[in-house]
Amino acid sequence: MKDPLVVFIPSGKKGRFSTGTPLLDCARQLGVDVDSVCGGRGICGRCQVVIAEGDFAKHGIVSNAGNVEPLTDPERRFDVRTGLIAGRRLSCHARLLGDLVVDVPPESQIHRQVVRKRAEVRAIEIDPVVRLHYVEVAEPDMGVPDGDHQRLVTSLREQWNLSIRAIEPDALETLQAVLRKGDWRVTVAVYQGNKIMRLWPGFEDRLYGIAVDVGSTTIAAHLCDLATGEVVAACGQMNPQIRFGEDLMSRVSYAMMNDGGAAELTASIRAGIDQVFAEAIAEAGIPGENVAVVTLVGNPVMHHLLLGFDPVQLGHAPFALVTNEALERSAASLAIASLGAGTQCYFLPCIAGHVGADTAAMVLSEAPHLGEAISLLVDVGTNAEIVLGNKDRLLAASSPTGPAFEGAQISSGQRAAPGAIERVRIDRGTFEPKFKVIGSDLWSNEEGFAEDVANIGVTGICGSGIIEALAEMLLTELLTKDGIIDGTKREFCPRLIPEGRTFSYLLHQGIPEIRVTQNDVRAIQLAKGALYAGARLLMDEMEIDTVDRIVLAGAFGSHIDPKYAMILGLIPDCALDHVSSAGNAAGTGARIALLNAKSRTEIEALVAKIEKIETAVEPRFQAHFVDAMAMPHKTAPYANLRRVVDLPQETQVENGAGPRRTRRAGRSRTTRQ
Amino acid sequence: MKDPLVVFIPSGKKGRFSTGTPLLDCARQLGVDVDSVCGGRGICGRCQVVIAEGDFAKHGIVSNAGNVEPLTDPERRFDVRTGLIAGRRLSCHARLLGDLVVDVPPESQIHRQVVRKRAEVRAIEIDPVVRLHYVEVAEPDMGVPDGDHQRLVTSLREQWNLSIRAIEPDALETLQAVLRKGDWRVTVAVYQGNKIMRLWPGFEDRLYGIAVDVGSTTIAAHLCDLATGEVVAACGQMNPQIRFGEDLMSRVSYAMMNDGGAAELTASIRAGIDQVFAEAIAEAGIPGENVAVVTLVGNPVMHHLLLGFDPVQLGHAPFALVTNEALERSAASLAIASLGAGTQCYFLPCIAGHVGADTAAMVLSEAPHLGEAISLLVDVGTNAEIVLGNKDRLLAASSPTGPAFEGAQISSGQRAAPGAIERVRIDRGTFEPKFKVIGSDLWSNEEGFAEDVANIGVTGICGSGIIEALAEMLLTELLTKDGIIDGTKREFCPRLIPEGRTFSYLLHQGIPEIRVTQNDVRAIQLAKGALYAGARLLMDEMEIDTVDRIVLAGAFGSHIDPKYAMILGLIPDCALDHVSSAGNAAGTGARIALLNAKSRTEIEALVAKIEKIETAVEPRFQAHFVDAMAMPHKTAPYANLRRVVDLPQETQVENGAGPRRTRRAGRSRTTRQ
Repeated sequence: MKDPLVVFIPSGKKGRFSTGTPLLDCARQLGVDVDSVCGGRGICGRCQVVIAEGDFAKHGIVSNAGNVEPLTDPERRFDVRTGLIAGRRLSCHARLLGDLVVDVPPESQIHRQVVRKRAEVRAIEIDPVVRLHYVEVAEPDMGVPDGDHQRLVTSLREQWNLSIRAIEPDALETLQAVLRKGDWRVTVAVYQGNKIMRLWPGFEDRLYGIAVDVGSTTIAAHLCDLATGEVVAACGQMNPQIRFGEDLMSRVSYAMMNDGGAAELTASIRAGIDQVFAEAIAEAGIPGENVAVVTLVGNPVMHHLLLGFDPVQLGHAPFALVTNEALERSAASLAIASLGAGTQCYFLPCIAGHVGADTAAMVLSEAPHLGEAISLLVDVGTNAEIVLGNKDRLLAASSPTGPAFEGAQISSGQRAAPGAIERVRIDRGTFEPKFKVIGSDLWSNEEGFAEDVANIGVTGICGSGIIEALAEMLLTELLTKDGIIDGTKREFCPRLIPEGRTFSYLLHQGIPEIRVTQNDVRAIQLAKGALYAGARLLMDEMEIDTVDRIVLAGAFGSHIDPKYAMILGLIPDCALDHVSSAGNAAGTGARIALLNAKSRTEIEALVAKIEKIETAVEPRFQAHFVDAMAMPHKTAPYANLRRVVDLPQETQVENGAGPRRTRRAGRSRTTRQ
Repeated sequence: MKDPLVVFIPSGKKGRFSTGTPLLDCARQLGVDVDSVCGGRGICGRCQVVIAEGDFAKHGIVSNAGNVEPLTDPERRFDVRTGLIAGRRLSCHARLLGDLVVDVPPESQIHRQVVRKRAEVRAIEIDPVVRLHYVEVAEPDMGVPDGDHQRLVTSLREQWNLSIRAIEPDALETLQAVLRKGDWRVTVAVYQGNKIMRLWPGFEDRLYGIAVDVGSTTIAAHLCDLATGEVVAACGQMNPQIRFGEDLMSRVSYAMMNDGGAAELTASIRAGIDQVFAEAIAEAGIPGENVAVVTLVGNPVMHHLLLGFDPVQLGHAPFALVTNEALERSAASLAIASLGAGTQCYFLPCIAGHVGADTAAMVLSEAPHLGEAISLLVDVGTNAEIVLGNKDRLLAASSPTGPAFEGAQISSGQRAAPGAIERVRIDRGTFEPKFKVIGSDLWSNEEGFAEDVANIGVTGICGSGIIEALAEMLLTELLTKDGIIDGTKREFCPRLIPEGRTFSYLLHQGIPEIRVTQNDVRAIQLAKGALYAGARLLMDEMEIDTVDRIVLAGAFGSHIDPKYAMILGLIPDCALDHVSSAGNAAGTGARIALLNAKSRTEIEALVAKIEKIETAVEPRFQAHFVDAMAMPHKTAPYANLRRVVDLPQETQVENGAGPRRTRRAGRSRTTRQ
């Protein structure tokens, strides 16, 4: 008579095992992905399975009825202690009695997947660098002089088949006390299967990690459960370095001009991160010791300062990085007191002197290297980081856009904060505007708007607002392709107000009054010219004229409407439904590096292969920049855009006071491929 | 026509090379051991060779005359700058012109040997874990975004064929500044050919290490030149932990009884070591940053406290070590401020709960594992550490001798310090004693003795003194084999003074008066019984009755005369010329681990193989202990000893007041094998 057949779904792996074999043993022998922290002792409940119901004919099994041992005592105890959903079994104790189909639910799989909100990006496979293992350790014996450390290592080998090669100094210091407190039963956090990071007396199944994106302006941290990938707490705060200067270069200057300045900046950012971590831990209600690992991303200056590297070389050509490899540091060495001293802090690698670990993380998140499609990733801040390519080749550059997109250098500009105009529409007939401000869902011409913004006010215009204002002015031909506010339209549009030899457009008549000035247009033209020229330089290098997909990342990329970005020509032409906002892609990349061990080697290998293009030394950059001052562009046809937007075909205005009447031409279509 | 032949002596390696090849290149291609720090740039002078003179017939060369390029400009410059001994050449610049015999002097060899004073021990081959390499690093280039770190690694690969895999965080922090200060020429300290430890701007050829033996009483450090092995400074001081208790167990008690007590002890010993290091650096007149590596040995309690491990488990059975593996820590993590933060501190492994890293170092120094001869190594302190064996098998044990050998528990006992009686002779006819005290070279009956000791006085008797006093009393039969001071001799020896039912021997009639009392004899009997029994237990385990070689290590082992130790039966019988004092063998072992990289893996592998015998749980220990109370032993014949010492054969004295007359028998010889 044959041994019973057991089939695991969804994997479909199957095999025959002796009657009485625990289902977990069957799963392990078949290589079925079933989790366990306690090693089959009925404590952790991670190995739960469901005895399937339904039609098993395709598996060659008639019925599951009676083919598994009834609920055992350890399962009953687990049910009383922790609760066991009806129909669930602990596979470590449920034994095989006959042919059986066993369903492994996602939460019992070690390598479960976390599906992300955006459909176009890959799911994160949970496979953290640190895992928990419950072990029973032999007590010391005068006849066998092995240290406690050696006996622990032996237990991990015998009970978990692990080859431990190292132990965190911090863990070694507490080893004896923890072993005795746990009465020789402990849970061990093991890094990559070979290094003991920490241990807890008795059974422990809470293990966390923090992914942190250290921006020049804000620090954003996500505290994640390493078993499920779930974000347990998300915290952020302003970068406390702001008191040393708003932008990066003023901080680098501070480091250069002041003795010990770099050390001050380092202490400041480390303290800021420590605060954010402490807040995240408090919000999650967990002990800091249970955070086993941290991943950090940031631009090169933040990366260097965090690590205690003087950023002075990043302030001038040739912008030499200290290192472009990934680094590991202990929390203690970074003066992070809210976590265990030995918590591993992993810094993603920087790509070049002004293309940082945040860009590497964006690549990890958006994965241009996994497909055939040519992706263009853009993260706009004071500089724009640009990555272009596909599975065959990746290029990266940084382009000096300046701070105009962040509202600086704009007459009524401000940061994206409550009260800032962020959306603008201009009526094609009346040239009257309507707008939305951050903090209100109403358009300015809707009923109740005044009441809705009574407290926040209409305080200025942020980056996305000025983009939309200019794009709408272009569409209504108040603005020429070359960026001249067309004063000849004044008779139809009283909102055009002369200012010296130029005109401005009155967007909001309040206190303050918000206008779009000719200088504002010039500032945006310069910024968008630099952004477009950077992208175009990479496209030249790759010898392509169009891209298949554009991802706008970062805070600005999240606020901006891709359509308006394209109308102004910030980005090259692309089918609009292939342009997306990635949100905090750098933060997501940090989270991937936190939850998936292999992603670290993936991004490290990738960064070594990414080709860096230096915009500053490329003569073509200047030519592209000049051509890109026109909106959307002097020559690029923007065929995809014209399919969905009624773009003025040709504008010809003399520079200065006497513009000619603009001519409206029919749509010109240029088809790609 | 054949290329010129070059023969290197003393290695005898030879080969033919094109005319014009620098001699260093010839040496490298032949695998001849020639040092270089600057990599052939004529800076370091480490590659000096001598163009041999004399008869080269056996090498098949007629004459060296004219077969090497005359002194080159770089050599002349080196001569002016540093001085070049006449006849010496820099092999990196001297080029081959014809057949040549080249002598590589010892100081130009990388793996030169340091011969030790004691002829019986192996020389130390200089092969440190850290070496210096001078490199020229490419400057940053906007077109190649490699970090400074990556370019340094590339230079080390291209110029030195090194595969760098890691860099000390501390070195990475200073990397950019040092590279620029040195104008892209730096000297790098590389650990084991794969890790950058530190770097200096320009050329640097001073690299040092410190070997330190951390005893319960004293800390002794040797600062060594890693290139030559030379001891540049030797410093020591009292272990500042003494204020927490004289002996180890009272310090462990302090840690147990006081909250934070262990941390206090840790801070105390670390501060002590830091002070000794600072002193050594000052004495040598070198920067602390040039100390690249430290090796540390000590008993298990010192070892644990230094590492920040609570020693409480070492205070009671089963005496569990935290770990019995070797450990590496950075100087910064041990709060050692006198050295560079990244200086590598290597802790030799402990063998068992009371057989420490100091014993492991003693094994490394005395190398019982390299020969056929059975060696017995003994380090006597409050406990005696005993190692027995040869290349096939090594056993280790610790025996609780108590502090009698250190002068404690002895009526007039004191530590070995000026004023302490350390040598004693008793006249066979008159029973009159003579002695020497520490601090004077004269015997007490020599002219000028009183003046010589006028300042230091005769203050007590130290361990070696009491051993000699008892042994002399035994030889003169004032003391019976069973340890009774024989009052019946009082008529011939008025120095025997009744004390209750027992007698004492008046050694020195001064202030204080120094006697050897019956209780003193008992204390030494107990101590020596424990020591002998421990050694005997290991001999039983190895199934041997005699040993080939005995090494007495440590302070007590250095002071004691092996003959007297054997007369009292502290150690088993052995040919006296095979008994030696090793001095601070633990310190020497630490020095070997400092100067020779392979010795680390050697001792780590050995410690894992050493069999530990636990005296406390061995029933035979008690039996051996009782038999060993007699002097030299109840039954052991001590044949070797009797060949050179006129030992009383048999003593039979009733316990108590009425001893019988001792009988003197002829020598009995028992031959080994």
